[in-house]
Amino acid sequence: MEITTAAVAEIVKKIVAEMEETPKQVTNEVPIGVSNRHIHLSKDDMETLFGKGYELTHMKDLSQPGQFACKETLTLVGPSMRAIEGVRVLGPLRKNSQVEISMTDSFQLKVKPPVRESGKIEGSAPVTIIGPKGIVELKEGCIIANRHIHMSPDDAVVFGVADGDYIDIDAFSGTRKTRWFDVQIRVHKDFRLEMHIDTDDANSAGLKNGSVVTIVK
Amino acid sequence: MEITTAAVAEIVKKIVAEMEETPKQVTNEVPIGVSNRHIHLSKDDMETLFGKGYELTHMKDLSQPGQFACKETLTLVGPSMRAIEGVRVLGPLRKNSQVEISMTDSFQLKVKPPVRESGKIEGSAPVTIIGPKGIVELKEGCIIANRHIHMSPDDAVVFGVADGDYIDIDAFSGTRKTRWFDVQIRVHKDFRLEMHIDTDDANSAGLKNGSVVTIVK
Repeated sequence: MEITTAAVAEIVKKIVAEMEETPKQVTNEVPIGVSNRHIHLSKDDMETLFGKGYELTHMKDLSQPGQFACKETLTLVGPSMRAIEGVRVLGPLRKNSQVEISMTDSFQLKVKPPVRESGKIEGSAPVTIIGPKGIVELKEGCIIANRHIHMSPDDAVVFGVADGDYIDIDAFSGTRKTRWFDVQIRVHKDFRLEMHIDTDDANSAGLKNGSVVTIVK
Repeated sequence: MEITTAAVAEIVKKIVAEMEETPKQVTNEVPIGVSNRHIHLSKDDMETLFGKGYELTHMKDLSQPGQFACKETLTLVGPSMRAIEGVRVLGPLRKNSQVEISMTDSFQLKVKPPVRESGKIEGSAPVTIIGPKGIVELKEGCIIANRHIHMSPDDAVVFGVADGDYIDIDAFSGTRKTRWFDVQIRVHKDFRLEMHIDTDDANSAGLKNGSVVTIVK
C-alpha cells in the first residue's frame, strides 16, 4: 500500500478532529505528595545555625514552584532529649522559622504541636534546632500540618471550590481504605495540584508520593 | 420540712421506677486500643531467643482477657540493617511467631509486610528477631495488622453485627477527622469491646488509648 502525503494529512485531520470532540475530562482525582518532617528557616535563625553569611544549598526542586529541598539537614530535640537527626531544610527562607513534624515524631521529642495550617505559628509548640554552628531554641513554630490541597485558580474552577474551603477526600487507592474530612483548599496561581499529607496519614492509608485520592462530592 | 422514712422510701421508689423505664442506652461507641509494634512467639522461637527452658515474665495484663505484656523485649532487623530495639513480647505463647509493625516501622526495616488479620501469616513478610541468646530468622510472620474490633456475643447483638463482618468507623474525637472503612468485626465470648489500631492510624487521626470512635450506621 502506498502512503501518500494526502493520505497522511487526512489521517492527521481525523485524529485532531477526534481530539477536539473529546470533552474535557471531568475528574475528582488529586495526586498525593507526602511531607516528611522538615524545617523552614528565617534568615536570622539560618545564620545562627550555619554561621554568618551562610547560604543554603539548593538540592532539588519540590513540586510546588519556587520551593526546594536544601542539601542541609538539622537535628531536632525536645524535652525527651531524644534527638531526631537529619531533618531536611526547605527553601526559600521565610519570615519566621517553622518546624513541621508528625504526631509520631512528637512522641519521640515529647513536644505537643497543634495541627495547623503552615504559617500559622502563633502559640504553637516550642522546639530546639541544633545546627553545625549554633542552636536555635524556638519559642513557637513547631506544628503538625493540617491536611491540605494546593491548586491553581483553573483547578479550583474545575473542582468547583474556592481558596479556604474545606472538603472531604477518599483515600481508596492504598492498603487501608480511609476518608479524610475537612481538608483545606489552598488556591494560588503558582500552585500545582497536589494534596499534602504527613507520613502518619500516608502510612495509615498506605499511600505514597503520586498515589491518587478523590474529592468526595 | 421534716424528712420521714416514708417520704424517703417514696422518693427512692420513684427514682427506681424511672431508671427501669429508661430504655437501655443504644450507642455506637467503641473505645480505642492502640497497638504499638509487638511480637508473639512460638515456644521453639522463644527458646532460641532466650535459651532452653526459659519462661516469659508476665508484666501487665492487656485489655483482652488472657493476653499480657511480658517484661521481655527484642530487637528487629531487616534488609536495611537499621534495628528497631525494645520491641515488646506479648504472651501467651502461640503456635507460630508473629511480628506486628506499622508501615512507618516497615520503612525503617525495609520489609514489606502485608496488611493482615492477626494469625494469617502464610506468605507474609520475613523479618529477623534478635534475642539475648540467639537469633530467629522468620521466613514469614511479619504483618501490618488490619483495623479490627473485638467484642463479646452480647456486644454483637447490641451493634447488630456478626463475627467476620466488615463495618465503617468514624474517628471524630481526635485532631484530624477520619473515617476508616472495612473494619473487621471479631466476636468471641472472651473478648472485651475495643477497636485495635496501630500507631500510624492512631497518630493520623490524633487518637490514643481510650479515645472513642463510632460505628457508621
